[in-house]
Amino acid sequence: MSRPGLRSVTVIGCGLIGTSLALCLTRAGIAVLLADPDPGAVAPAVGRGAGVPLAPGAPPADLVVVATPPSAVVDVLYEAQARGLGRAYTDVAEVKGLIWEEAVLRGCDVRGYVPGHPMTAGGPSGPAAAEPGLFAGRPWILCPGPSVPPEAVAAVEELVTLCGAVAHTMPPGAHDEAVATVCHTPMLVALALAAQLADTAPDVLALAGGGLRDTVRTTASDTRLWSDVLTHNAPAVAAGMERVAADLALMASGLRDGGDICSVSVGGLLLRGHRGRAALLESAGSRNTGDARPRARV
Amino acid sequence: MSRPGLRSVTVIGCGLIGTSLALCLTRAGIAVLLADPDPGAVAPAVGRGAGVPLAPGAPPADLVVVATPPSAVVDVLYEAQARGLGRAYTDVAEVKGLIWEEAVLRGCDVRGYVPGHPMTAGGPSGPAAAEPGLFAGRPWILCPGPSVPPEAVAAVEELVTLCGAVAHTMPPGAHDEAVATVCHTPMLVALALAAQLADTAPDVLALAGGGLRDTVRTTASDTRLWSDVLTHNAPAVAAGMERVAADLALMASGLRDGGDICSVSVGGLLLRGHRGRAALLESAGSRNTGDARPRARV
Repeated sequence: MSRPGLRSVTVIGCGLIGTSLALCLTRAGIAVLLADPDPGAVAPAVGRGAGVPLAPGAPPADLVVVATPPSAVVDVLYEAQARGLGRAYTDVAEVKGLIWEEAVLRGCDVRGYVPGHPMTAGGPSGPAAAEPGLFAGRPWILCPGPSVPPEAVAAVEELVTLCGAVAHTMPPGAHDEAVATVCHTPMLVALALAAQLADTAPDVLALAGGGLRDTVRTTASDTRLWSDVLTHNAPAVAAGMERVAADLALMASGLRDGGDICSVSVGGLLLRGHRGRAALLESAGSRNTGDARPRARV
Repeated sequence: MSRPGLRSVTVIGCGLIGTSLALCLTRAGIAVLLADPDPGAVAPAVGRGAGVPLAPGAPPADLVVVATPPSAVVDVLYEAQARGLGRAYTDVAEVKGLIWEEAVLRGCDVRGYVPGHPMTAGGPSGPAAAEPGLFAGRPWILCPGPSVPPEAVAAVEELVTLCGAVAHTMPPGAHDEAVATVCHTPMLVALALAAQLADTAPDVLALAGGGLRDTVRTTASDTRLWSDVLTHNAPAVAAGMERVAADLALMASGLRDGGDICSVSVGGLLLRGHRGRAALLESAGSRNTGDARPRARV
């Protein structure tokens, strides 16, 4: 990274992620301009010290970060590029493949666009929960296309570094499969589990231990955002849920058939579950992340 | 509870639960005699100060606690009653209906037997992890039969109180449905989720957040014990898994069909999940139990 470094960044979208990264950048001495498809969302971020409002006629920023939910990214990116707001562009959406395809179809300048996804440890949602430590030590996936110039990638990598995150580069499809496995499917399985409790008597719920509460507490709270995310990663997430559903159905069938002895299907899934648990707990990230929230947010 | 109080208790089964409750009783000044179907298991509990070994010819204890896995309870109970080891009997198995039926069929004296289930907050498994605080503030379900004399129930209630737990009385079938909902099904769903990770690349696993690790970390580690528990509560657990599997399959189908807009099935499950989460977090127990483990153990 021999380039002179970021001096100005425009952040479009003043939600949890946008405000948090703007706070990081402001603290690092970068000039941060703030905008939002909902103009009323800018003032709270300005009030937090995250930057100043983007004014008409501002010179192009070194980098524009589109920090909107997935379904808004391409329109916002297209308009920002049409207005010449920046020299390079990135986004923070949890899904990458479909957004890239939409950006190509829409006619965005994808040579200046480095798709990104900060996988925050999570926590309370909403812009009021924004804080600059949100990205510390967490993965930040980058999915640069084949024709992106190195200086655009370097600008986004500097953003990642300034936020204290760790950049990982992978193709959009690999990203979407990975987050389906470690974020989206687990979240939906936890929600399906929580759904079973919706009509359970309070005195039965009161018997639950802390583990069930922890599992259920970490389910996504923003239904609209999650619907948006999931529909943008539908095939991979659907496949993940179908695999879990098939394993549960097989185990249920084994239990119904098994009588007094545990059937092969039940024992097999228990053992495979233990293998998966061991693999996860031994993976590199388990030494770095103690947070109780499973998913990144946009 | 106007009875004179427990003075002697025999604990058969020196695992996590048996040793922990023996430690509670010993600290309360009760004479505790220890036995185990595996004679080698007694010495470690004696070494922990949980009691002294049960010797042949000992006078009947006020209460005998059968603290074995579910499949051993009825044989151990039958033999203990045949030897006249106590004036009242209880157990600590996680399942109650089938054990009660087996006890009746086997010819146990079910008038002197008050089935019990301490729903510990969990934690590390195995007798080495035994500690007297295991039951503090936790529910302890009792399922006394219709012909049990009040003094037998009072003896078991005193055990519960001495362990710092809170007694709840319910029929065996209601117990088994309740634990299927709040313990067994959640555990198996978490295991099915973990099973999907068994063949996932380590660099993908390293992207997982702390929430997934917490969910997966709390899955049961003792495959043999869990097979035993599950097969004793098979219909209720199978039904719970089938419900989750059906919801997951419906959501997957909605995602596959839904295109850009979130289908009714996805949105509906998200909302039902949030209702279930709210119900659980508002239930009485959520204010008392902060532990990260969902299940009781025997």
